[in-house]
Amino acid sequence: MDDRPVVLADDTTRAWSPRTARARFREGLAIPTAGVAAGYAQANLVSVPADWAYDMLLFCQRNPRACPLLDVTDAGSTSTVLASDADLRTDLPRYRVWEGGELVDEPTDVRAYWRDDLVSFLIGCSFTFEWALAAAGVPLRHVEQGRNVPMYRTTWQCRSAGRLSGPMVVSMRPVPPEHLDDAIRESGLMPAVHGAPVHCGDPSALGVDDLDRPDFGDRVELAPDDIPVFWACGVTPQAAVMASRPPFALTHAPGRMFVGDARDEQFRVL
Amino acid sequence: MDDRPVVLADDTTRAWSPRTARARFREGLAIPTAGVAAGYAQANLVSVPADWAYDMLLFCQRNPRACPLLDVTDAGSTSTVLASDADLRTDLPRYRVWEGGELVDEPTDVRAYWRDDLVSFLIGCSFTFEWALAAAGVPLRHVEQGRNVPMYRTTWQCRSAGRLSGPMVVSMRPVPPEHLDDAIRESGLMPAVHGAPVHCGDPSALGVDDLDRPDFGDRVELAPDDIPVFWACGVTPQAAVMASRPPFALTHAPGRMFVGDARDEQFRVL
Repeated sequence: MDDRPVVLADDTTRAWSPRTARARFREGLAIPTAGVAAGYAQANLVSVPADWAYDMLLFCQRNPRACPLLDVTDAGSTSTVLASDADLRTDLPRYRVWEGGELVDEPTDVRAYWRDDLVSFLIGCSFTFEWALAAAGVPLRHVEQGRNVPMYRTTWQCRSAGRLSGPMVVSMRPVPPEHLDDAIRESGLMPAVHGAPVHCGDPSALGVDDLDRPDFGDRVELAPDDIPVFWACGVTPQAAVMASRPPFALTHAPGRMFVGDARDEQFRVL
Repeated sequence: MDDRPVVLADDTTRAWSPRTARARFREGLAIPTAGVAAGYAQANLVSVPADWAYDMLLFCQRNPRACPLLDVTDAGSTSTVLASDADLRTDLPRYRVWEGGELVDEPTDVRAYWRDDLVSFLIGCSFTFEWALAAAGVPLRHVEQGRNVPMYRTTWQCRSAGRLSGPMVVSMRPVPPEHLDDAIRESGLMPAVHGAPVHCGDPSALGVDDLDRPDFGDRVELAPDDIPVFWACGVTPQAAVMASRPPFALTHAPGRMFVGDARDEQFRVL
């Protein structure tokens, strides 16, 4: 597996076009995508057999803060409206393969696992609103510290859909008090990429016992006055896969997202 | 049928609670809902057999400006998360019944048509953002004139989903030039109820030949400098039903919406 702390994008990978990023990942590069192809929107991926697609689509509709849908493919399709030339089987840096809710592989390419009945769901990513937070002067501690954003499985249950249920997963960013209003407003203007925070302040309100032990991503240091701010996270469908055990699913590996062709600012409602 | 110009809500019906409005409609009152239970969000309805539910859900996902989903029920359910005590078979003022894409009835109650395999889709309504337009000082010509908002079938095709395809339907509001920015901003802040306009200015860009002959609702007079402003409309699924001919569907009658318990302002992202 690949859970060691990571070095985020450097000047070279930040300047990549989305097409270049996808080409590098297709060649096997397996780096985290935070900061890669800066300015272009990334997406979470979950692919399930057609027999489970209605439940997944309904699960996303019923949990729009965690699972804002940017695209849903036709069964078997390996392309997406989010990019002109992408192949969803090869163009992410790393995938997770799930059988009966168990993680069985983390390859950099899923051609060997692909099935013609797979429906792929591309879900908005909070990296997209980080552009707006940074533009408003909100410091991004995980970026300053060269780490992936920390994510936590909460005790908040999603609204279930058919056979799919599971907890909400959240990402956490430490925000100085004087920037809290900016962070809420700027992310709130981007509902297609999770929108406003679901909670600010007390991790225990979400059933998170220890901020230093995220379930996905890396731990991040809070400055003395920082408030932990929690946003619903596109890893939530992975938690539903783990809880609900469909016979088969593919997802991105947390922090290793699909890089699309749309600009971050296209997801701002104003 | 029921296409004559209508008198909109009076002081009594404006002051109704959503629960009272639903109770009156359940008793058979068949008035348009514009202005009824002022301040509470209304919704479009389309119900299709479970066999068609995936296509409808995907159609809505792929056309989010026209079909922003507020709730999708489990098959056969007559209740919705949008109201605590509602019965979707009786609580709208008037329905349309569709067989093979043909309108076969417009009853005030669909208990006689109900099927246990029906999945109901409740879709955001532009009446909800009219609250914000009015608060920003944008005049609402159709309300001033006591008419239902005019709606037009455009030549813009929706993104298809399985067996469902069809044109985008739009609602039109005349807006004075000095209020155009307000109208765009205020509706843009409410993406769950259609969001910003899809077009301002030239009706022919949408394939609309004659503003005085709407396909649904009533014609509305423009003041001399008014700009016609077009928003994607929740009647779009009805146009898809007419174009794609599922064996059976129920919808609301245009302008006779479901009145839910949520306040209009809950759909504003800020």
